[in-house]
Amino acid sequence: MTGLSFTITLPSWVRSVIDFDQVYESDADKMDLANALAMGNVANQSGGPFGAAIFEESTHRLIAPGVNLVVPEANPTAHAEIVAIGLAGSLLGRYDLSDNGARPAVLASSVEPCAMCLGAVPWSGVSRVIIGARDADARKVGFDEGDKPSDWVASLESRGITVTRDVQRQHSVLVLNSYVSSGGEIYNTDRGTTDA
Amino acid sequence: MTGLSFTITLPSWVRSVIDFDQVYESDADKMDLANALAMGNVANQSGGPFGAAIFEESTHRLIAPGVNLVVPEANPTAHAEIVAIGLAGSLLGRYDLSDNGARPAVLASSVEPCAMCLGAVPWSGVSRVIIGARDADARKVGFDEGDKPSDWVASLESRGITVTRDVQRQHSVLVLNSYVSSGGEIYNTDRGTTDA
Repeated sequence: MTGLSFTITLPSWVRSVIDFDQVYESDADKMDLANALAMGNVANQSGGPFGAAIFEESTHRLIAPGVNLVVPEANPTAHAEIVAIGLAGSLLGRYDLSDNGARPAVLASSVEPCAMCLGAVPWSGVSRVIIGARDADARKVGFDEGDKPSDWVASLESRGITVTRDVQRQHSVLVLNSYVSSGGEIYNTDRGTTDA
Repeated sequence: MTGLSFTITLPSWVRSVIDFDQVYESDADKMDLANALAMGNVANQSGGPFGAAIFEESTHRLIAPGVNLVVPEANPTAHAEIVAIGLAGSLLGRYDLSDNGARPAVLASSVEPCAMCLGAVPWSGVSRVIIGARDADARKVGFDEGDKPSDWVASLESRGITVTRDVQRQHSVLVLNSYVSSGGEIYNTDRGTTDA
């Protein structure tokens, strides 16, 4: 032990939203969970209005949930997707969530991933990404999504990762709006780099 | 507590390389530490050949070190920069490492940040990035850097983040080569997405 470590811990309310035994069969089912995590984060004031979840593709079962924990964990990289991917790796005991392709995995994200989280997608081993709200929806309420490659969908697809957008989009937008109307912090606005 | 958490812990040898009381005054001093961390990771077989460190700009003192821990932590996002940024936030107790601009911070990275880590830079609050080896150097030994915006230097600079490249580059390249010649794992090669 070096004393040099940090931990990311999901809030306790998360347990009441997730079910590791449930079959989240459709894309809408998967997104409903990501949105429930995002909404739970708003309702419990435990972070930004973003939720994500990793599923095993063949069984449609949840591997790991994630919520935005930037402020409570004092960690600017603790976006919902980074949290879900890190927790999934920890729970599975492997950095390649797909286990070298043998167990394909899916990421559902309530809002289009920011530049950092998009960059993390290929490293995670997931072969599908399901997205709720669009980049423009996040920017509309004041969050910055960062500078992405203009052709990021094509970039992911060239790596064998399929992208499905606008799944339960209006629900994801509703969560973003709830956060703003409840006075949630749009952090980093001072330097124009609020992150999603 | 939910039982849903994960921890990133720096290897114990890191303590022998870093010095929180030292003044890392020049860019070369800062990069020498990032390279020493990268080399230590190779020598101790504790992760990939990448090191990073966050410094306070005004005092030139180390805030937090980072090394690539993807394989040992089973976390595909545990790149040196993500580790250094997360640890810095945890040690400082704030997600904005610059404390809203009052305490400017610098990131030194032994190799040009991958797409994910580049995306993390604006969220971290650092106002300078110092880079050793180039993207091409990492790709040359088999690592994938991901799909970055073609004008990423301009993108960062438009956000007020300056970029200095090729600092002690040959030393950083030497570390990459040492890793390869010692048989280090170039992970994810099977799907063409080895990450740096």
